This record gives sequence, structure tokens and C-alpha cells, in this order.
Amino acid sequence: MSEQHAQGTYVEPGQEYTRDTNYIEDRITRDATDGWPVEAGRYRLVAARACPWANRSVISRRLLGLEDAISLGLPGPTHDARSWTFDLDPDGRDPVLGIERLQEAFFARTPDYPRGITVPAIVDVPSGKVVTNDFPQITLDFATEWTEFHREGAPDLYPEALRGEIDEVNAVVFRDVNNGVYRAGFAGSQKSYERAYRTLFERLDWLSDRLAGQRFLVGDTITEADIRLFTTLARFDAVYHGHFKCNRDKLAEMPVLWAYARDLFQTPGFGDTIDFDQIKKHYYVVHSDINPTGIVPAGPDESGWLTPHGREQLGGRPFGDGTPPAPPRSGEEVPPLAVS
Amino acid sequence: MSEQHAQGTYVEPGQEYTRDTNYIEDRITRDATDGWPVEAGRYRLVAARACPWANRSVISRRLLGLEDAISLGLPGPTHDARSWTFDLDPDGRDPVLGIERLQEAFFARTPDYPRGITVPAIVDVPSGKVVTNDFPQITLDFATEWTEFHREGAPDLYPEALRGEIDEVNAVVFRDVNNGVYRAGFAGSQKSYERAYRTLFERLDWLSDRLAGQRFLVGDTITEADIRLFTTLARFDAVYHGHFKCNRDKLAEMPVLWAYARDLFQTPGFGDTIDFDQIKKHYYVVHSDINPTGIVPAGPDESGWLTPHGREQLGGRPFGDGTPPAPPRSGEEVPPLAVS
Repeated sequence: MSEQHAQGTYVEPGQEYTRDTNYIEDRITRDATDGWPVEAGRYRLVAARACPWANRSVISRRLLGLEDAISLGLPGPTHDARSWTFDLDPDGRDPVLGIERLQEAFFARTPDYPRGITVPAIVDVPSGKVVTNDFPQITLDFATEWTEFHREGAPDLYPEALRGEIDEVNAVVFRDVNNGVYRAGFAGSQKSYERAYRTLFERLDWLSDRLAGQRFLVGDTITEADIRLFTTLARFDAVYHGHFKCNRDKLAEMPVLWAYARDLFQTPGFGDTIDFDQIKKHYYVVHSDINPTGIVPAGPDESGWLTPHGREQLGGRPFGDGTPPAPPRSGEEVPPLAVS
Repeated sequence: MSEQHAQGTYVEPGQEYTRDTNYIEDRITRDATDGWPVEAGRYRLVAARACPWANRSVISRRLLGLEDAISLGLPGPTHDARSWTFDLDPDGRDPVLGIERLQEAFFARTPDYPRGITVPAIVDVPSGKVVTNDFPQITLDFATEWTEFHREGAPDLYPEALRGEIDEVNAVVFRDVNNGVYRAGFAGSQKSYERAYRTLFERLDWLSDRLAGQRFLVGDTITEADIRLFTTLARFDAVYHGHFKCNRDKLAEMPVLWAYARDLFQTPGFGDTIDFDQIKKHYYVVHSDINPTGIVPAGPDESGWLTPHGREQLGGRPFGDGTPPAPPRSGEEVPPLAVS
């Protein structure tokens, strides 16, 4: 994600932070209701490693084995007020879309597109137009519309019988946790910060209680709900604890959530999408009104992510009747953890 | 302390942080070499709760029982570029010195005093002049020159036989830890930050090794060396971890140092001088170039400071042949810990 802001301006003095949740809401479906049919090789997922909202779609694509059907473009961790850029690619251009700035694909769709140039975005390769940047729908459609292209052994990330419960959990996790850390970090007053902080940690305590006796958030397999919580937890100690002042405790000091997060991190398709360097650089460089020095913290020690979590004792079947995905393909690996 | 800076300007882009260590170096001694004799009731120690350098002198005064001999003035946690102020006192004036700004006592000594208006400062009450703000000497003189006024059972904080070793430990602790956290936090470049970070944590590892098998830093009793390390450790998770990006680990994640710090915190004269609210407010409000929003973190959870530390097992005699001090006197208490 990352909304459109004046260069480095995220905190509005005296104001609460309110996320603009207007997106391009077209869907890619089997019946092509919106004009975009499910079709292998036609679309490119643009998703920065740094961004938690984009991270969801990258994990989902890995777990479901959609790598052959939907290619992946990776903008760099930092961006200016206008756009994410493909500065990690050899000549600064996405090798498939041929563009330097993600903005170009939004403008191809709508000249002078007025809202945020956000990731994840799915681009129609032939026309170069953004189809959707509606991140909550993107992963649901990967799970339910793209089934024809799922790998053998792909899990069911949005099982019909559990959708009501998953949706309920997702709603409170979005409000209090996924977006809650931003409401703390971008708060323009002490009062709005403290309200967000309190709500966040109350919700984390609620999640700890829920996860103390069950391995995954809903049912006994990994679902969409786990993906959405994981991408925030993965960034908690690296960024939200210090940069966003979510510092009652580190994730590493909340035993149940920390074990839960490690369990997922060590599961193929989760930890192998996480690039802590890019994550830290994104937040600490882009939000220059929170961190004007631009110094990026050297910590925390990341080695704890690989320690035993003991969650197998709770039972659960991570992939249900399916199997874990194969390792990431060449060109899509993340660097190994920095161990201090 | 807190040097003189343009309003809220502590980080100089591209520069390492270098502390100005020029102070008013007069000493108060039995032989009155510098014209300032040891004399009960004549001097006032001005020491903000927030400041680690001032905290040393407050702890030392408590442990030695110098409360009757040397009174205590307490400026508030925040200050502007010019001076610490007595904004916590009823009418904004120190009740003994009658001044609103500590600067007035420096100017009484030297009109247009050009360097930092720092705490701790000892003021000669009759003349209203600052005698000294040379913080490393102040505590040594409390321990060695003011013996006539020590309470019964006062410990020997600077035992003759151990002075060489105490001085050696103090030198590396000052460079790498006490001042090291500032070199990280005020670094003007990624490189100078990372150098300070590395040096800091290497020294903390060295201290952990040293303290794994012995209860105190030098000898088997509390000395000046422990006081100096403690005041930095007490601020570590509350401020240095996030605000100064000293975030390889929290103190609470370094078992030996955390137990050592809790042992001292729970010893009369240490924890009863710590006011976490004032500490956090000072750093997060005063350094507006690091934290321009001025939001003060609500965390961390402080309750851990009161948990059992188990360090008694290492032996040691905290007060040597002496005894712990009585509780703080009325008007000098700090608020109880916030427990979330």
C-alpha cells in the first residue's frame, strides 16, 4: 500500500489517522464479470517486499502455487510521494511491464488517477493497465477464483464453511492490528496515539488468548486470517515497536503470539517472503516526518525467528489435506536472516 | 546534562555526535582549595529526574544520606534550548534559589556563560552561583569529601583499594554505554550510527560476561561504577531502545544485565529515584529533530522491574559493612510504576 502523501508527510498534527480505503475494485474472475477473466500468463502482480498489504498477496500466491499463472514484479522498498518505483530492476524498469514507476500503470488505466499509487496492484500485461489494487479482495480471489491454476496440494485458504468466522476475525484484526499500528504511528495527537495503542494491545491480548489453545486463527488449518495477521506480526519488532511506538511489549515478549508467528515464519510460503532489510528501509526512510534523520535501525536481532516454536503440540494440519509449497523460484528468493 | 543546542536540534547531518565535555570544574572540598568548603546547608543540588547524568548524583546523595547536608532542586523534564526550568515548582520558581531558569545561576557565576546549561549543577545558595556542573567529579566528591556528613551506615562508594579498577570500568562504560547511546541516537549518518550501535552492544556483551559471575561491577559491594551503569540501563527500554535506535535487544532481553539492573532498582536509593514518565517526556519532547511529532510512547510495560532477580545467589554485600538508606523523604518521592 502506501497512500498518496506530500513527500514524507504522514502525520497531520491534531488529527487521527484515517486510511483512504477507496481502491480500483475490479475483480479478475472466472466469469469475467468486470471484463477480466482468469487467465494464466496475462497478469502481473506488483508487490513490494516492504509492504504488509502487498505481502499478503505474495504469501497467498506462494501457498497456492500461482507463480506460473501470475508473474511477480517487485518495486524497491522506498518511494517518493508519487509512486513506487522499479529501482531494484537492472535498468530501473520492470522487465515485463517496461515501466519505471508503478504510477504509469495507474495512469494507463485512468489518466490523472487521483488517489494513492498503492501495492499490491495487479496489472493487465497486454494493455499495461492496473486491473485492481483492492488488496483484501485480491487474496480472496486468488483462493477462490484461480483454483484452476492452483498447484497440486494447494491448501484451501478460504474454506466455505468457515468464511463467516474468517471474515469476522479479519474485520477486527484489520481495524485494531493491521491498521491499528498505523493509527498509532501516524497519530497527530497524544490522545489519538494512546487510544490506538490501547486498542492494539487489547486486541493482541485477545488474539493471544485465542491462540493459546489452537494452532491457527480459524479452524485447524492455515487460512486467509493467518496470512493477514502474520504480515503485521512479522513487522512488529522490526518497525512498529519503535517507529510507530507500539511498545508495550515486543512481539518477542508475547509468548503465544511470538510462537504463533514463528510457526508461520518457518512454514514454506511465509518466512521466505520476508525481507527485513527492505521492510525497515521502507518505513524509516519514507516516513520522513516521523524519522527525519533517515537513519535505519540496525536491530533487532532476527535470529529468534528460527528458534523452535513448539506449536506442533497443539495439533492442527497446516495445509489441511494439502502439502507445503516448493521453495521460492529463482529470482524470487529473499536474503537469509541477519544473525548478530 | 543536556547541552546547549538550537531549539530541538541535536543531530547534525553527516556528522558524528561529539559531546562537549567542558564544565565548570570547581570542587567542593574539605580543604576548600577552590574556595568552596564542605558545609552542611550551604549548597543546593539541581538535578532533573529525567537526566541520567543528574540521576547519578541523586542516587549517590540517597545512598550516602546527604539529604540533610545538601538540598535538592528538581527542574521539570523538558526544557528549551536555553535552560532547564523549575516548572514543577508551585509558582515556577525553585523554592530555595528563587529562580525560574537554571540559566540564572550560571549567569550569576559567569555573565553570558557560553556553554551548556546542564544538570547536575551544584549551586551556592547564599550567592546563587553555580559552583560546579562537572558531573563525574560531583559524585566522587560526595563519596570522599563529604564523609563528615554521611549517614550512619553509609556505604563506601569509592573504596581506595578499588579506585584504579573503578576508574577503568567507568572510562569504558562512559565511552561505549553512557555516552554510546547518545552517539547512536544523535548520529548524523548511517555509518556513525552503526559504529556506535556495534560498540554499544559489544560493550554490553562484555558487561554481561563480567556480571554473570559477580553481583556488582567492581568488588563485592555497590560502588560508583554501578551507579554510573545503572542510570543508563534504567533508561534503556524506556528511551534508548526506540528513540535512539539501540535496538539489537531490549535490556529485558539481556538476562544478566536485566537481573543486575533489577537488583539495583529494587535496592533503596536506586529505583526510588527513577521517574519513567519524566524520563520519557524529556527525550521524546526535547529532541524534536528526532521525534518531531512530540508523541511520547505509552510503553514499555514497567512491571518487570519489580520481579525477582535472583542475584542474591551470587553473594555480594550491597552496602558492605553499612546498611540501606531509609525511604526518600517527603517531597522527594517518585510516582509508583505504571503497571499495564
